[in-house]
Amino acid sequence: MSFPSSWTTAPQQPDARFFEQAAQRQSALTKPSGSLGRLENVAVQLAGLQGTKTPAVDQIQISVFVGDHGICEEGVSAYPQAVTAQMIANFANGGAAISVLAKSLGADLEVVNLGTVSDVAPGLPGVIDARIAPCTRNFAATDAMTTEQVCAALNHGDAAAQRAADKGSQLFIGGDMGIGNTTSATAIASSLMGKNPMKLTGPGTGLDLAGVRHKAEVIISAIQRHDNDDDGQDAMAVLKAFGGFEIAALAGAIAGCAARTIPVLIDGYIVSVAALVAVSHQPDIRPWLLFAHRSAEPGHQAILDALNAEPLLDLGMHLGEGSGAAAAVPLLRIACELHNGMASFEDAGVSTKKQ
Amino acid sequence: MSFPSSWTTAPQQPDARFFEQAAQRQSALTKPSGSLGRLENVAVQLAGLQGTKTPAVDQIQISVFVGDHGICEEGVSAYPQAVTAQMIANFANGGAAISVLAKSLGADLEVVNLGTVSDVAPGLPGVIDARIAPCTRNFAATDAMTTEQVCAALNHGDAAAQRAADKGSQLFIGGDMGIGNTTSATAIASSLMGKNPMKLTGPGTGLDLAGVRHKAEVIISAIQRHDNDDDGQDAMAVLKAFGGFEIAALAGAIAGCAARTIPVLIDGYIVSVAALVAVSHQPDIRPWLLFAHRSAEPGHQAILDALNAEPLLDLGMHLGEGSGAAAAVPLLRIACELHNGMASFEDAGVSTKKQ
Repeated sequence: MSFPSSWTTAPQQPDARFFEQAAQRQSALTKPSGSLGRLENVAVQLAGLQGTKTPAVDQIQISVFVGDHGICEEGVSAYPQAVTAQMIANFANGGAAISVLAKSLGADLEVVNLGTVSDVAPGLPGVIDARIAPCTRNFAATDAMTTEQVCAALNHGDAAAQRAADKGSQLFIGGDMGIGNTTSATAIASSLMGKNPMKLTGPGTGLDLAGVRHKAEVIISAIQRHDNDDDGQDAMAVLKAFGGFEIAALAGAIAGCAARTIPVLIDGYIVSVAALVAVSHQPDIRPWLLFAHRSAEPGHQAILDALNAEPLLDLGMHLGEGSGAAAAVPLLRIACELHNGMASFEDAGVSTKKQ
Repeated sequence: MSFPSSWTTAPQQPDARFFEQAAQRQSALTKPSGSLGRLENVAVQLAGLQGTKTPAVDQIQISVFVGDHGICEEGVSAYPQAVTAQMIANFANGGAAISVLAKSLGADLEVVNLGTVSDVAPGLPGVIDARIAPCTRNFAATDAMTTEQVCAALNHGDAAAQRAADKGSQLFIGGDMGIGNTTSATAIASSLMGKNPMKLTGPGTGLDLAGVRHKAEVIISAIQRHDNDDDGQDAMAVLKAFGGFEIAALAGAIAGCAARTIPVLIDGYIVSVAALVAVSHQPDIRPWLLFAHRSAEPGHQAILDALNAEPLLDLGMHLGEGSGAAAAVPLLRIACELHNGMASFEDAGVSTKKQ
């Protein structure tokens, strides 16, 4: 298996003329300039990325990538590992938050199963079998993934982007599920940003203070192990060192969407770390990303800062699954509708500013 | 004309049992406790206010109250006063931001014309003729309104709440339009909170720094005039002193909705000041209010603090019309859908937290 071309090649850059055209339209609409705040920027960004006068996010694909983590052996999560597989069934049965949100938005939801320790019933609707292994290896002891596994995960992410392109998706949302994945993500982010894991580690699904401290110590120790391996600190080496399958697949999906000129709405902590991996690997991916929300996970802000990102929502969410991104979709839709549907001062016969 | 009973009588308080029931359901859903952040609080609040297990905001009334301001004689706005009447036509023709938003949300939009200096074409669809006078008086010189005018405006607001009740509205949004109304609102807020207008005055539709300073000086001087009148600092006296028609009507609509147990989603600066008037007048109104967004108008935060309110959105919007509240409606709907539609741990067979 070879790496996807979306991973080895820089994506094209959006055409600046569509941004300029959209900004001009915003200034002609019947409102004081800037009075729609960030909704104006969102409309301009979507118009620019979609290369259109009339941006829209009607057709959306949400791909939730699922995988288990060997690091759970170290007692880093408040929930048992069986939950990962159980949640796949819950996604398929419509009971999870992202299931409810996808239905509400009329978005296509797919679940990409990259490997769980517990069995998943075969043939669940909307679940794609992309199993690499039952889980990553325990990165306290060794690299979480082999190079072949990283490659497989990136390809599974790229395949999701291809499905989104085939359906004419106007926006892509990646989500995550995997007990233990904030530990992987924090190890990755700490390594890539050169930050002390003590500053980035948070409660994830609900650790107490002692649990957070233990989790940070596990990460610090693992980073020391990795540094001794002398594999380097590039995005690929860090991804391989700390996993997980779903984070690698998300990075692949983000790169895959950028390569196919599909804007990506980035969810919270885990997906932002995947975006950090993708952008660290290939900075030209960054313009294709919009940021949905600020997670309650305390390390998220540092990752947003590293990506120069200011998310739309700040609601204290920290669920994963792409739920924070899904919650922000109505704002994108409203931004587009205002951009496309409002009258101009000229059309409406409304007087403009005095000065 | 007499004051509406919703203004002279305290509203009933919501039933605590529905809040408790909703909070219990939130903790049983398949997600780490608290991981949906403020969406959980919103669902619990709506369930409690609506007195139901299954909160919903499908049926929404948006009433935009419009009036002109005598204080415009003092040169306090970046736009000519003719815009107020022009915007009524734009609302009716579907070209304004709130028109686009109401259509997108499937909300009922009505425009209540309380009086404009420029003529408004008769018979515009969705425009209610509630004209009190062409505009308030210039409050730099005298009280903006007579007691009879305050009473009339409160009744027009209460009538909007009655229309919302008649239609079975599950949520009420009030909006404002009136060139000069941030000057009125800032005078009211400064008086009620005992704050220096220099700290609260902002650019409104787009004054430059010199314009903001002049506006603040006009307000300071008017407050001194009012203080010499010895009319007192209660909500009614302050409303009468500084206007405007639309702010008084909004206060009446807010009280009217609380009296009819309709939750109110408060928009930005102007509507928050109307809420401050209503709650200052009658503190039992406060539980019926949800807060949509933080306006870019710099004085808004102090008003939110006085109301102990933490809005959902912070997008730098400062348009008025109820547009910030409308932008937050999808979050309320999502919160309800998640509350009503997610599976519980028990139903989905998902394992709960270890500890």
